[in-house]
Amino acid sequence: MSVFTTVTPAELNAWLKRYSIGELVELQGIAAGIENTNYFVTTTRSRYVLTLFERMSAGELAFYLDLMAHLARHGIPCAQPIADLDNAYLSTLNGKPAAIVTRLPGRAVETPDAAHCARVGAMLAEMHLAAASYPEGAPNPRGAAWRASVMPQLLPFLEPAAVSLLESEMRFQAGRAAGDAVLPRGVVHADLFRDNVLWDGGRIGGVIDFYFAGVDAWIYDIAIAANDWCLAADGGLDAERVQALLAAYGAVRALTPAERAAWPAMLRAGALRFWMSRLYDLHLPRAGALTHTHDPAHFERLLRRHVAQPAVIAP
Amino acid sequence: MSVFTTVTPAELNAWLKRYSIGELVELQGIAAGIENTNYFVTTTRSRYVLTLFERMSAGELAFYLDLMAHLARHGIPCAQPIADLDNAYLSTLNGKPAAIVTRLPGRAVETPDAAHCARVGAMLAEMHLAAASYPEGAPNPRGAAWRASVMPQLLPFLEPAAVSLLESEMRFQAGRAAGDAVLPRGVVHADLFRDNVLWDGGRIGGVIDFYFAGVDAWIYDIAIAANDWCLAADGGLDAERVQALLAAYGAVRALTPAERAAWPAMLRAGALRFWMSRLYDLHLPRAGALTHTHDPAHFERLLRRHVAQPAVIAP
Repeated sequence: MSVFTTVTPAELNAWLKRYSIGELVELQGIAAGIENTNYFVTTTRSRYVLTLFERMSAGELAFYLDLMAHLARHGIPCAQPIADLDNAYLSTLNGKPAAIVTRLPGRAVETPDAAHCARVGAMLAEMHLAAASYPEGAPNPRGAAWRASVMPQLLPFLEPAAVSLLESEMRFQAGRAAGDAVLPRGVVHADLFRDNVLWDGGRIGGVIDFYFAGVDAWIYDIAIAANDWCLAADGGLDAERVQALLAAYGAVRALTPAERAAWPAMLRAGALRFWMSRLYDLHLPRAGALTHTHDPAHFERLLRRHVAQPAVIAP
Repeated sequence: MSVFTTVTPAELNAWLKRYSIGELVELQGIAAGIENTNYFVTTTRSRYVLTLFERMSAGELAFYLDLMAHLARHGIPCAQPIADLDNAYLSTLNGKPAAIVTRLPGRAVETPDAAHCARVGAMLAEMHLAAASYPEGAPNPRGAAWRASVMPQLLPFLEPAAVSLLESEMRFQAGRAAGDAVLPRGVVHADLFRDNVLWDGGRIGGVIDFYFAGVDAWIYDIAIAANDWCLAADGGLDAERVQALLAAYGAVRALTPAERAAWPAMLRAGALRFWMSRLYDLHLPRAGALTHTHDPAHFERLLRRHVAQPAVIAP
């Protein structure tokens, strides 16, 4: 996730004395992501990822770090925050809130097959159930309120066709939001894309990047995952992979009729959210050393596709 | 640690629905150890160790499981208990308190060198410091009170020379116990033998078997480790390995003068404790399917050696 704040080996070695994970062997900046500063850290004990948080408050971070720790305790393969000698996950390094978490094995797959999608579906259901005992409940930080707040900032940058799509989709989602009350909900990852799952052979070695997690409808989380994991070469979703993901999810936690009914709207909501955030990062970027942004047009196309050809869940 | 209570795959699969770690792939009894029933468990998620606790109460177990979880959160490579959907580490399986913990990589080394001893020393110091923020404080379950309670049961089984050694060493330790008040203390592993550390290449992949942990003098924990890790072919301790262990420990947490002074007595206390527990397991065994016991005579010889040739810490 890019380096916005530089950390030297000497600075890190001094900071590591707060922890029980040995001494620094290697430090390497990570040139991916758009939110935080990240380094790979190798110590005499093991391998870790150091994150300096660039935008979030200590209160927000406590929610994410405690959530990761909670899920890890339940056997979900997510990065585990390391507690320091004060028993805290969050500390300060070079003036920024900072945490060090375990580095997970494996690497992302670019072209998942149905078996990958099934593993992701089962794991997502287990994550939803495991998070049900997590006591905190911050709302989804990229939910309806966020959409409403950024839309006026985005409109000046858009072509007329995009303005029309954004305005009509915002009206559609607002019009159906009351129906979401019947959807089972809890803490969702809300960003479970291919680049946030590491594969260790055929198994999931790790789920990363919980910094968009919050309480929302579980089916919305599944839709966000499907929008990325089940993408077909023609720009739509591959029915076989969608079916594999949903069936494996359902084997752990059965979907309700309301969730099945909401599926097409949730796929649209997922595409809308990432279209908007990518537009925001493209047109209203922050200063940073190694940042890169993703193309918003991909999600604009996917949203148009979902509007034109609503996907339904096979009975 | 042997199988005292049998678990079938069908029983385990039903029980695993309480957890978020996938479905059972393989179940295999472990024929080592003398306290609990243990199985290796492989699921679609990962590899675990299932333990059915044969002797300890739920209250005692909460202490050990919470301690392992606490240390794991601090980056100490110990088995992590998995929480179930009720958010609890301890559950019931076939009428016994049961827990499932992560299976750690690596295997024990039989003949450690000075580099192994240094790694163990550094890790033990980090473990002591990390455990300082653990809020619970059960006393060492194999401390002075336990020794006093089992001595009368052991005496009828011993030869006169052993009776004499046991009685005189009990008097020695009782006579110097008041001096322990000045020793820094906290939660200690109290059983950090070679078979409780798994090596993954040259690194410590795991520390296991925390079921004798309790609050005692830190230097006592170091002595217990040295009695096993630094054993020489002649039955005494190898000075080079003792030095490596102590130096690496001291680089993380400096020993106090009182700890240095107590070292010879602590080596004796460590040998006494394991001599007595092995005598107990040999002469007063429990019924069990796959149990095996260790030879008490080894620690009787080591104790005699420590009495005859007190080891001192090099300045």
